[in-house]
Amino acid sequence: MNHSKTEINNIQIAYIGGGSRGWAWGLMSDLALENKLSGTVKLYDIDYRAASKNAEIGNRLSKREDVSGKWNYEAVETIEDALIGSDFVIISILPGTFTEMESDVHLPEEYGIFQPVGDTVGPGGMIRALRTIPIYAGFAEKIRDFAPDAWVINYTNPMTLCTRTLYEVFPEIKAIGCCHEVFGTQKLLASMLEEVKWISNVNRRDIKVNVLGINHFTWIDQASYQGIDLFPLYREFVDRNYEEGFEGSEKNHWMNNHFASAQRVKFDLFRKFGLIAAAGDRHLAEFMPNNWYLKDLQTIQNWKFSLTDVSWRIQNQQKLAAQSDRLVNGKESFEINPTGEEGIDMIKALLGLEELVTNVNMPNHGQMGNIPTNSVVETNAIFGRDSIKPVLAGELPPEINNLVMRHVLNQETTLQAALQQDNEMAFRAFANDPLVNLPPHQAKELFNKMLENTKAYLPV
Amino acid sequence: MNHSKTEINNIQIAYIGGGSRGWAWGLMSDLALENKLSGTVKLYDIDYRAASKNAEIGNRLSKREDVSGKWNYEAVETIEDALIGSDFVIISILPGTFTEMESDVHLPEEYGIFQPVGDTVGPGGMIRALRTIPIYAGFAEKIRDFAPDAWVINYTNPMTLCTRTLYEVFPEIKAIGCCHEVFGTQKLLASMLEEVKWISNVNRRDIKVNVLGINHFTWIDQASYQGIDLFPLYREFVDRNYEEGFEGSEKNHWMNNHFASAQRVKFDLFRKFGLIAAAGDRHLAEFMPNNWYLKDLQTIQNWKFSLTDVSWRIQNQQKLAAQSDRLVNGKESFEINPTGEEGIDMIKALLGLEELVTNVNMPNHGQMGNIPTNSVVETNAIFGRDSIKPVLAGELPPEINNLVMRHVLNQETTLQAALQQDNEMAFRAFANDPLVNLPPHQAKELFNKMLENTKAYLPV
Amino acid sequence: MNHSKTEINNIQIAYIGGGSRGWAWGLMSDLALENKLSGTVKLYDIDYRAASKNAEIGNRLSKREDVSGKWNYEAVETIEDALIGSDFVIISILPGTFTEMESDVHLPEEYGIFQPVGDTVGPGGMIRALRTIPIYAGFAEKIRDFAPDAWVINYTNPMTLCTRTLYEVFPEIKAIGCCHEVFGTQKLLASMLEEVKWISNVNRRDIKVNVLGINHFTWIDQASYQGIDLFPLYREFVDRNYEEGFEGSEKNHWMNNHFASAQRVKFDLFRKFGLIAAAGDRHLAEFMPNNWYLKDLQTIQNWKFSLTDVSWRIQNQQKLAAQSDRLVNGKESFEINPTGEEGIDMIKALLGLEELVTNVNMPNHGQMGNIPTNSVVETNAIFGRDSIKPVLAGELPPEINNLVMRHVLNQETTLQAALQQDNEMAFRAFANDPLVNLPPHQAKELFNKMLENTKAYLPV
Amino acid sequence: MNHSKTEINNIQIAYIGGGSRGWAWGLMSDLALENKLSGTVKLYDIDYRAASKNAEIGNRLSKREDVSGKWNYEAVETIEDALIGSDFVIISILPGTFTEMESDVHLPEEYGIFQPVGDTVGPGGMIRALRTIPIYAGFAEKIRDFAPDAWVINYTNPMTLCTRTLYEVFPEIKAIGCCHEVFGTQKLLASMLEEVKWISNVNRRDIKVNVLGINHFTWIDQASYQGIDLFPLYREFVDRNYEEGFEGSEKNHWMNNHFASAQRVKFDLFRKFGLIAAAGDRHLAEFMPNNWYLKDLQTIQNWKFSLTDVSWRIQNQQKLAAQSDRLVNGKESFEINPTGEEGIDMIKALLGLEELVTNVNMPNHGQMGNIPTNSVVETNAIFGRDSIKPVLAGELPPEINNLVMRHVLNQETTLQAALQQDNEMAFRAFANDPLVNLPPHQAKELFNKMLENTKAYLPV
Repeated sequence: MNHSKTEINNIQIAYIGGGSRGWAWGLMSDLALENKLSGTVKLYDIDYRAASKNAEIGNRLSKREDVSGKWNYEAVETIEDALIGSDFVIISILPGTFTEMESDVHLPEEYGIFQPVGDTVGPGGMIRALRTIPIYAGFAEKIRDFAPDAWVINYTNPMTLCTRTLYEVFPEIKAIGCCHEVFGTQKLLASMLEEVKWISNVNRRDIKVNVLGINHFTWIDQASYQGIDLFPLYREFVDRNYEEGFEGSEKNHWMNNHFASAQRVKFDLFRKFGLIAAAGDRHLAEFMPNNWYLKDLQTIQNWKFSLTDVSWRIQNQQKLAAQSDRLVNGKESFEINPTGEEGIDMIKALLGLEELVTNVNMPNHGQMGNIPTNSVVETNAIFGRDSIKPVLAGELPPEINNLVMRHVLNQETTLQAALQQDNEMAFRAFANDPLVNLPPHQAKELFNKMLENTKAYLPV
Repeated sequence: MNHSKTEINNIQIAYIGGGSRGWAWGLMSDLALENKLSGTVKLYDIDYRAASKNAEIGNRLSKREDVSGKWNYEAVETIEDALIGSDFVIISILPGTFTEMESDVHLPEEYGIFQPVGDTVGPGGMIRALRTIPIYAGFAEKIRDFAPDAWVINYTNPMTLCTRTLYEVFPEIKAIGCCHEVFGTQKLLASMLEEVKWISNVNRRDIKVNVLGINHFTWIDQASYQGIDLFPLYREFVDRNYEEGFEGSEKNHWMNNHFASAQRVKFDLFRKFGLIAAAGDRHLAEFMPNNWYLKDLQTIQNWKFSLTDVSWRIQNQQKLAAQSDRLVNGKESFEINPTGEEGIDMIKALLGLEELVTNVNMPNHGQMGNIPTNSVVETNAIFGRDSIKPVLAGELPPEINNLVMRHVLNQETTLQAALQQDNEMAFRAFANDPLVNLPPHQAKELFNKMLENTKAYLPV
Repeated sequence: MNHSKTEINNIQIAYIGGGSRGWAWGLMSDLALENKLSGTVKLYDIDYRAASKNAEIGNRLSKREDVSGKWNYEAVETIEDALIGSDFVIISILPGTFTEMESDVHLPEEYGIFQPVGDTVGPGGMIRALRTIPIYAGFAEKIRDFAPDAWVINYTNPMTLCTRTLYEVFPEIKAIGCCHEVFGTQKLLASMLEEVKWISNVNRRDIKVNVLGINHFTWIDQASYQGIDLFPLYREFVDRNYEEGFEGSEKNHWMNNHFASAQRVKFDLFRKFGLIAAAGDRHLAEFMPNNWYLKDLQTIQNWKFSLTDVSWRIQNQQKLAAQSDRLVNGKESFEINPTGEEGIDMIKALLGLEELVTNVNMPNHGQMGNIPTNSVVETNAIFGRDSIKPVLAGELPPEINNLVMRHVLNQETTLQAALQQDNEMAFRAFANDPLVNLPPHQAKELFNKMLENTKAYLPV
Repeated sequence: MNHSKTEINNIQIAYIGGGSRGWAWGLMSDLALENKLSGTVKLYDIDYRAASKNAEIGNRLSKREDVSGKWNYEAVETIEDALIGSDFVIISILPGTFTEMESDVHLPEEYGIFQPVGDTVGPGGMIRALRTIPIYAGFAEKIRDFAPDAWVINYTNPMTLCTRTLYEVFPEIKAIGCCHEVFGTQKLLASMLEEVKWISNVNRRDIKVNVLGINHFTWIDQASYQGIDLFPLYREFVDRNYEEGFEGSEKNHWMNNHFASAQRVKFDLFRKFGLIAAAGDRHLAEFMPNNWYLKDLQTIQNWKFSLTDVSWRIQNQQKLAAQSDRLVNGKESFEINPTGEEGIDMIKALLGLEELVTNVNMPNHGQMGNIPTNSVVETNAIFGRDSIKPVLAGELPPEINNLVMRHVLNQETTLQAALQQDNEMAFRAFANDPLVNLPPHQAKELFNKMLENTKAYLPV
């Protein structure tokens, strides 16, 4: 890298999963908008052709006059090629294919288990973890051997276990897991300010929150805007909107959008537990006991959130593939939109250009009380030059910590089970997931079927 | 106290709940058999008449020539009278009456929740805790003020929360919770030695075990007899008896005995988790998810353990009351039987007469890994003169620790809820109990009814 | 308090030690320069007249047209009057008088012990602590009873033990200890940038450092400016200046200034330990073994730092008293100079007006590894609305941690000794101080003499 | 191994340092007296001839009719030969030769530093550690590869760092460090019972003590015999004997015996700190600041303990070598004397034949509070079949913990310095040793000379 006081050139980024559409294009967009950084992005993907297309798309973009962040994109055939010399490693992959995800998400429905997302916890999240952990163990070894000093930013789910695996295999790794779910809650609080206090256009970054929990099951116990404590306002806001939910300015009603909700789960958790749950309702519901928000389709409809059908993901993938071809051959022009993700801000902070305080997934070294050391937790951290220091976020009250710990320990069990290829151990976690509210023999039957469906991606 | 090298006189014991039949008579029996100790037992009970009768019974016993342990029994009208000057405090009370216990145990059946015991966890255990904690907070204050240096031995359930409350209110207290459930498992292992290795008449004290967990949900991860590792033998034993269960030399078949089981739950837990669960099946089943062993009456019958109906307890109480009168007026002679409890051994060890290693409930100061500091855990400890030092028992594997932690944190929540009289907080624990497998609104309905039934014993 | 989006009025500050000249005048100066805040400062002092004069000085100042921060100053006769209704409490007192300090600093010289400051550790710091801890225990009780929700900012030395005492007596207190020594090291690094890299006019706040240690014995293990790692530069800087020392742009040579040094101790510690010690050399030398930097006057001269004679402090006090009178009667005009302290920035951050990351003294809840829980440590923290969250600063290497721990445990011993009025316990800490390099009987003799000299301020 | 209910045959012991006289002969003696065990001892030594002679001596002994413990002794040429198949590994070596030890102990005298033993801490102990740690790192690797399940019993000094190194290199090792110094204190307490209470012939094993600290610097905070608290008696005993010291029934006056003392250091520490220091005075003095007990020869004489001159060790070695030859060729008959060591008791306990509670050196996993995890501490532990569980010994008061921590952290630094071959880091520990009360440049000079003298045993 070359430093000047205010910009840095010749940065090298390795992008693992560089053939992806959504995330890779988002990165290109954000890089294009940032004029203080430049360098090379090496795109690695098991689908080399997809990576090549993305390289082509990225390089076309860099040539445009309206683009201030100039980067060179290069598809590489091996992960080693991507890693050697890299300053940053970004990982965003699909573990397995949508065929496996179809089984993860929908097979449990035969046993009365509905999963709005199915990639984090629940039977779907667990089976996904079993095939993802070996892949990430491999990444960790490669990073240890070829880019031990690089900062690694992970976007893949299950976020907690991906990040946890990297540290388990290579404890000195400098890795974080990044997720935008908390941002969504900050935006909700901004909307609340408009509704309750007529303060409009609040930037979600000015909503200061203390975050604690695990990815997709994070909680906020302090929130303020300027000098204002947001908790009393939120209580009023929840009371107003508890029954009907709040849809805000989102264009699509929750019933028409595969990712939307009316925030009713969040409101109910606030009423029952007193803190602000800081993830989308679709995620939150998956962490709670099965008969709270996911008992049956009628219950789900009452709570007003959508289930994301994998068939939709497949269709969407096909649309994006077609779009990719159009972008490559220039039939369509790349539309630059800031993603709202903080990856680029993090990179700038790690390069020393600015200080950043934001939430991040890292092994617990005391930032969260009453959670085991080394389990990956999500709290705020200060990013500075080559340094990420979590803040002492405190601890959750025991009744919420209890809900969190159940998943933390299931995840620790799943990690060890996957690394030791011990399916009996994996089943112990599976049977203890709150959504797997089944007698043991039925739980075992479901587990075996799901495992069979993902076996192409399990080590032998 | 007066010490000589081998015996100690003028010991003073305060017995809170001194009007009880079962426990008080057991203590009298054990004291009568022990010739190294003598002194005074002050019996305190909210039912003074019952205490008086017990004093009479005890003093009659002490006069008998066949009794070597000579004690003076005295009923006292206030707890202060009992405590002042005491070297040891024994607590064994019924929190509330069997009317409240009837509600604890049987009301949840209307919601499909069956509880074999209902005094530890589950809806019954929790509601019982809510009325017991304030009583124990009172005891702790009295002990702090009138007998701060005495050793306190608790036998009341919920054991964990009774002991926990004593320490929460008076952190310098020297208190332990004692329970014989682990002894039963040692006896089972002794029976196993006979069945599998033809080694007979093994004293359960010679079965060396490492104990870790919480009361009634303890686990053994090392067990030996002389130089023999008992784990391979237990595996063989479980395989032989898994389907039919093991009833051993117990006189009564499990179906005819209100406290018996065929050990099938214990065997199943061993198969599923690899460690030896060390409590009676009736207790163990209450700690697991509702649909494992308690789904319905048919399931319970398949697992071959009994439900202890409170109506049986009421009848038994009446029989004992009648017996008490006969003992007082000399129509019946007190039958001296060693109880198998270790209270007297503990007292002797605490007086410095012998060293004792046994399992005990105490606040966690590191004896169990991955359990919060100060939560009450059950592990081995060394008893010596005025000293109980827990041993470092290690930690449970994460998948079992997960099952334990759920209760540990529910208990911490229940403790705080009871002390702060916060029913909303109490409900958060209630709704998270594994047996309370209900949608939140049903859980709330059950909670409110049960609370109403116990309100005579709640602080106002 | 009244909030608007960008300014806050009606703030109430209690100033304990409000008759002081240096610190109180500094606060007035900083408040006068800050236009977003206004309210009342209640000045409490055991010398009520001095507080009254300061009130007069402050109110005169507020009336001036060139002053944008308008505050009302009020001298009060009791600490309760100051505390009731306060949002912030500032404490800056002289524990005892300069007569006691004379003994603290200079009596040990008879035993060959030289102390450049004598208010933190060493025999002087310890005896000062013994008379300060009871005073602070009293403050803590008053704050608990009259201003439990106020934020408390302490400036008095011994900083660590003052802050530690507040938390020991009132654990829920919201208190911090503030010190500018780290700022001085940041300024040194800024000077270094000019010398080594020709980068001038760097604001010390843009020198980002990770701070860990205890007050006046803090260490920096990461330092950067923009994207530049300052450690290699510091090594070069130390090599250049090791022999002669570095005096920078300070107006006075170290020999002519009672607070100055040539940084040679700091440079030597860097060479020997590899990290940047972040306090003035006069302080640092007091934490190290006696024969390192303070063996005798010749050694001290070689290391080029000054000893602050208490007679100078007495003279200075007299000069300030005279100046106070001139300010009160208008013969002299108050000169407004920013102090460079961060108290006002902290207040603004705690009011939610801005986010601040800076170093602060707080009880250790994990921000520093391998230091006991609750011992007061100095690390960075994020200040936000009604919230200070320390960052996880990591841990010192064992060889430096060893030097720090010796003082941490001496301080814990001193705290308990002072609270329990146990002089034998206090002596154990005294005899173990690195400067008290004496045979025990001589140490005891010195201890007794010093204690005698301060007995007017010890509880009886 | 073959088990029967009460005896175990075919045990295999690997003895590393099997050519030693003192320790190996002691083991032979103890094994000869124990009729429940038999098997093979494989003697490995870098001096194969010495091991062979010992094998011959041992086999001669086993053939004697008066010997009930029959063992086969075999000298082996490689450590692998000794380890493969072993159930127990005993290590007792001299790291380097007496030439190096001569430098360790006596060179510092040129700088005014006197060391009574010089093998644990102080300049001698540290330099000895630097050459011992690499040797033990090698042992750990061999044990990991060839006898990972064996129990390892170490007798070599520096005990703490030998044991610590084994765990650092092979964390799953089952190793302990054993030392008889606490036994000596128990014997002193037994003598005290005779003097103060006319209770004679008390077995030191019946003196129950709670032990906490590090090897050779252990403390007792609870001591009892039967029901008697020994602390008030000890205070009386110290008062009686403080001035003159106590020599008890030891045959030799301290001035005539290279290992004796009059216990004055122990008595003084009790007066100053309130707990019973539980090691010989010669060891204890080395852990305290230089000017407490080792200031000069006069001071040492006043405290009445001996300095063990290395020239005596050399002479003694020669005498033992001659005796070895006589034993081999039958000119002298092996005299069987129980050593008083507990190695054989430990082995029996680990085989499951009996339960044993005694003090032992193991990594801290919570048995001692306020000492870093994994640092090797000495506390009581329960030995059972294939299991050693430390007891929760509690924590030392901060003022004593401070004295201990200084050495703990010096040892951690020394360990890392030795493993990383970083002499600068080693010097940081050296300069911070309480006996090295020198200006840094003199400390460095001494360090360099001592290092030079041991360089034949340092890795290159």
